Amino acid sequence: MKYLSQKHEKLVEALRKLPSIGRKTALRLAFYLLKQPQEEALELAEAIKDAKESIQYCPVCGNITENDICKVCADTSRDRTTICVVEEPMDLYSLEKANFYTGLYHILGGALSPLDGIGPEDLRIAELVSRIKEGTVKEIIIATNPDTEGEATALYISKIMNPLSVKITRIATGIPMGSNIDYTDGITLSKAFKSRGEI
Amino acid sequence: MKYLSQKHEKLVEALRKLPSIGRKTALRLAFYLLKQPQEEALELAEAIKDAKESIQYCPVCGNITENDICKVCADTSRDRTTICVVEEPMDLYSLEKANFYTGLYHILGGALSPLDGIGPEDLRIAELVSRIKEGTVKEIIIATNPDTEGEATALYISKIMNPLSVKITRIATGIPMGSNIDYTDGITLSKAFKSRGEI
Repeated sequence: MKYLSQKHEKLVEALRKLPSIGRKTALRLAFYLLKQPQEEALELAEAIKDAKESIQYCPVCGNITENDICKVCADTSRDRTTICVVEEPMDLYSLEKANFYTGLYHILGGALSPLDGIGPEDLRIAELVSRIKEGTVKEIIIATNPDTEGEATALYISKIMNPLSVKITRIATGIPMGSNIDYTDGITLSKAFKSRGEI
Repeated sequence: MKYLSQKHEKLVEALRKLPSIGRKTALRLAFYLLKQPQEEALELAEAIKDAKESIQYCPVCGNITENDICKVCADTSRDRTTICVVEEPMDLYSLEKANFYTGLYHILGGALSPLDGIGPEDLRIAELVSRIKEGTVKEIIIATNPDTEGEATALYISKIMNPLSVKITRIATGIPMGSNIDYTDGITLSKAFKSRGEI
């Protein structure tokens, strides 16, 4: 677009790199930011810089934290015998929001994906093994996404953990609450049938 | 969410202020930014700061520009006898992208909205009158949005401009190309019927 100024175009391109933000949305956001009062637009710039510079990963579970150890790991009221394994910090957040799980977490930092060149050494699997070897943990709940990468990761972890004396479970695949059977895909339906339980 | 760090929460809140970004998307964007390499996340912060600090409004048309006068106004190849009146710089961009209009623009900076306390003096209407009084302009095409505020603004401008010797037109309301009649709302249909033309 020849009439867009260079700095404006640069802002659009930077916004466009964000997930689920296309060219049109990036344009709209850029125009919005330019229309805002100076301090409000700069507030966002500062928040990005601040967060990026002060936040690090928890050495225990891999969650995002401002302190040495993250708030979940530091919470002494949580059940230390259970670890829920998730792909990303966002997954931990979703589970915490649902407010039913009281154990600890382990964030892998992704899932196995040979096509993207992500192997076991790129995930925090060794750290998980170390945690188990400490002896406190009795159960690992694998809550990776139920897609190809997440399933492969779950299988890999369960194999690695097999020699260790720890119970390994996988969250159930099935029809989500409030959904319809006729809108559900075949693989999910077959999984839901296989995992059926007595009423 | 008690387990989210303070700086992280601040970033989420800053992102949430953007249009069409809800809490969930803001969270996803924040997690994404924190996962990116330092320089990529800071690139966005810098782009916001840079754009915000270097960009100003064109004194002629009100478009966004890095220079004294915007690129559209400075382009001598454009037709200087026609001015298209739009609400926001984003509208200019959409029209330029469609690549059929060759005249100049005038950006109002919004639309009349008594409920939001936006009156004629808050829009760049006086500047438009001055431009018309210079005598070069022969036609004003009012391209404000076809909603309550945009319609009111179009009506107001046409009344203000009436004593001046300039042709005032309004872009047509009707059924968009590729759309269906049965999906179109009643007001649009009635407008399309009223504005019908001979084939």
